[in-house]
Amino acid sequence: MELVQTYLDRIERHDGDLQSFVCLSSTALDAARAADEEIARTGPRGPLHGIPIGIKDNYTTADLPTRAGTAVEALAFPQEDSHCVAKLRAAGAVILGKLRMHEFAWGMVTPPTRNPWDLARVPGGSSGGSGAAVAARLCPAALGSDTGGSIRIPAALCGVVGLKPTYGRIGRSGIVPHSWSLDHAGPLTLTVADAALMLQCLAGSDPADPAAASAPVPDYAAGLGEPIRGLRVAVIRNHFFEAIDEDVAASVEEAIRFFEGQGCEVRDVQMPSLRYGLGAIFAIELASSTAYHDRSLAQGHVAGFAADVRDLVEMGRFVTGPDYVRAEQARALIMAEMADILNGADVIVTPASPLTAWRTDESTVVIGGQQESVLAASWRLTYPFNLTGLPAIAMPCGFDRRGLPISLQIAARPFAEGMLLRFAHLYEQAYAWWRQTPPHAA
Amino acid sequence: MELVQTYLDRIERHDGDLQSFVCLSSTALDAARAADEEIARTGPRGPLHGIPIGIKDNYTTADLPTRAGTAVEALAFPQEDSHCVAKLRAAGAVILGKLRMHEFAWGMVTPPTRNPWDLARVPGGSSGGSGAAVAARLCPAALGSDTGGSIRIPAALCGVVGLKPTYGRIGRSGIVPHSWSLDHAGPLTLTVADAALMLQCLAGSDPADPAAASAPVPDYAAGLGEPIRGLRVAVIRNHFFEAIDEDVAASVEEAIRFFEGQGCEVRDVQMPSLRYGLGAIFAIELASSTAYHDRSLAQGHVAGFAADVRDLVEMGRFVTGPDYVRAEQARALIMAEMADILNGADVIVTPASPLTAWRTDESTVVIGGQQESVLAASWRLTYPFNLTGLPAIAMPCGFDRRGLPISLQIAARPFAEGMLLRFAHLYEQAYAWWRQTPPHAA
Repeated sequence: MELVQTYLDRIERHDGDLQSFVCLSSTALDAARAADEEIARTGPRGPLHGIPIGIKDNYTTADLPTRAGTAVEALAFPQEDSHCVAKLRAAGAVILGKLRMHEFAWGMVTPPTRNPWDLARVPGGSSGGSGAAVAARLCPAALGSDTGGSIRIPAALCGVVGLKPTYGRIGRSGIVPHSWSLDHAGPLTLTVADAALMLQCLAGSDPADPAAASAPVPDYAAGLGEPIRGLRVAVIRNHFFEAIDEDVAASVEEAIRFFEGQGCEVRDVQMPSLRYGLGAIFAIELASSTAYHDRSLAQGHVAGFAADVRDLVEMGRFVTGPDYVRAEQARALIMAEMADILNGADVIVTPASPLTAWRTDESTVVIGGQQESVLAASWRLTYPFNLTGLPAIAMPCGFDRRGLPISLQIAARPFAEGMLLRFAHLYEQAYAWWRQTPPHAA
Repeated sequence: MELVQTYLDRIERHDGDLQSFVCLSSTALDAARAADEEIARTGPRGPLHGIPIGIKDNYTTADLPTRAGTAVEALAFPQEDSHCVAKLRAAGAVILGKLRMHEFAWGMVTPPTRNPWDLARVPGGSSGGSGAAVAARLCPAALGSDTGGSIRIPAALCGVVGLKPTYGRIGRSGIVPHSWSLDHAGPLTLTVADAALMLQCLAGSDPADPAAASAPVPDYAAGLGEPIRGLRVAVIRNHFFEAIDEDVAASVEEAIRFFEGQGCEVRDVQMPSLRYGLGAIFAIELASSTAYHDRSLAQGHVAGFAADVRDLVEMGRFVTGPDYVRAEQARALIMAEMADILNGADVIVTPASPLTAWRTDESTVVIGGQQESVLAASWRLTYPFNLTGLPAIAMPCGFDRRGLPISLQIAARPFAEGMLLRFAHLYEQAYAWWRQTPPHAA
């Protein structure tokens, strides 16, 4: 109760500026009291018992409305707990409230949420509320969802940990769909160890999600302390290191040197097929999203979407079936090349974002002398792991000259979340960037 | 050499009427002589050494032109052995020639090839030349390819065995693509044992086909004699038994009773999701085929296609990306229901075709009182196993009142070709329909 009350007080104090929560649960304190009583009586169910968690607003919840970021009142979502929320409740977690997201997860800005490191800047998206709330210590952990980077981009821009596990590792039933072959569920947390605890609770089969894997779930916390000496790190030098901010580059290179210093074998590699990546994910995501919104298009509800989202949903109608097939073929090439790289390496290390948080009034940025839309730039380094379904984590690795967080991305083989968390934890133990608190969370 | 000469003589005698071969190899007798010499010297490499095989004209070959059924001269295909042809040559098989196919595998008629049971009737397609040639004993085995039924339909209409293995079981590199997620390679033969020998030679990994499976290849011939007592047969009563010719129904019901008599547990089941099947495969196949022909569309070559194929390739442009996504979602439903059925059964038994060979001048037929286009009817019972990728065999199970072959289809779990061949072989041993020779092969 004390913990939940502390977070409710912090939300009261800071969320007027940040706008990270859409709504708060009126029963959080009751749930906390019940947890206290059960813990006193029979001990804790596990590490999440009594812990307050924030939920991205595209996960349905029995006791709180779900809007998926849309203002269109006519669209109703089931009033029942999604698979992940039910898992959290079963672990004894206290659902604190619903977190703001970019409408239907189709954007990287999440208005009106602001970045706790600089209120003039965006928190990223689409899980922008989750990133801002965890960074501002308004909740210790939050659920996000990631179709092209929507967990890792706000984690990167807000300076927290965002974990997109392997495709299928966490069941997605009850999440408002965006693009079924790209959507992933996952947590945003302050530390890597917390990400491991959340993954432990959420991973496993989900009868209502055909893509959910029933592969056994290992003990993720157990491997965190293990050494990485002798393990192999691949650095994909094209695509991931082209047109990135120089402060970002410097911090990521330092992280790579850290892994080298730990006895890892670091190898630079190239991945030519990534030149097809943006076209591929854009075609797949547009077509899938528009397939989901088919009825809303027919019934005229899309006219009520924000202009940017409406444009994307309408554009999806012009992706042809042959375009979609070619996109899937490019995806297969990219998956094969990525698998080749991971045959010779245990993890891939990249920047998570080519740029740090941009201002809410910026729609283009200049990186490495080239002008680019922020939307195009923001997901460049995250979407390859949605196309391939490989697990990837974004975590703080320093600050730029303006004091904005920089983020490192570590990816691994399918279902090798343990490997990825081991690298991330070791780096975090050495640098502990997470201890720095954003100015708008004091 | 004697064997090859015998087949060349039969081709000389019958193929003027049948038109099953596009071209013959000028080096077949040389290859046969070399095989004879090697066999005399060091014994046979295996069961296919010296055996003449016909190749569907969408498999590229180093020594024979490949046209994939098209008359458009500007379209050139690589002059090198496709994966399967290379495997056959390595096993010592003698490539006899290239077999006629429906243009780009987009049809079930294969003009001008005729059916050896009745020259006024079609051989089916798209591997129509393969079906006619094997039925007429112009070669003991042939390669076919199957995207919606293109091995099993001509096998059914010509009264031979056609095996479409599990998706990925046989590598497809060097086959002119039609629809990458539906295309399968496989053999047409006179007997089930011959199909097992061909599969044994062709199965296995193919580095140039990303979908090829590296799963170990069992000894298919070894299981042929094993009993089926106690095994479970599912009969999907909706879809597969709706609107089928009454002679076809009678023969298939008798085959089902045969399996029951062998001690199998036969169970009737329903598969509601099949109502979405035709829409799903049509969207996927149209979009995929048009993606392949993209350049030919842009360069105007499609204008030179036969009218039916040109229409289909042009129609594919109007399948939208969202349509494709919905088709893949329907496919996922169908796969899940089929997997459920095969959790409770070892094989599924169905008719392979709702009708026997139709006349070349028929474009519609009346089955069960309902008029239907022959193209729509012909693949109704085969395409579900392309959507699901499950192995399926078509084999003779009797003759209709006009003396035309009727065909049984047996499907099994992924990579359970051995199970399917065991059932098929036992049935064949009991009835041996294959011993009846078509009138135009005497």
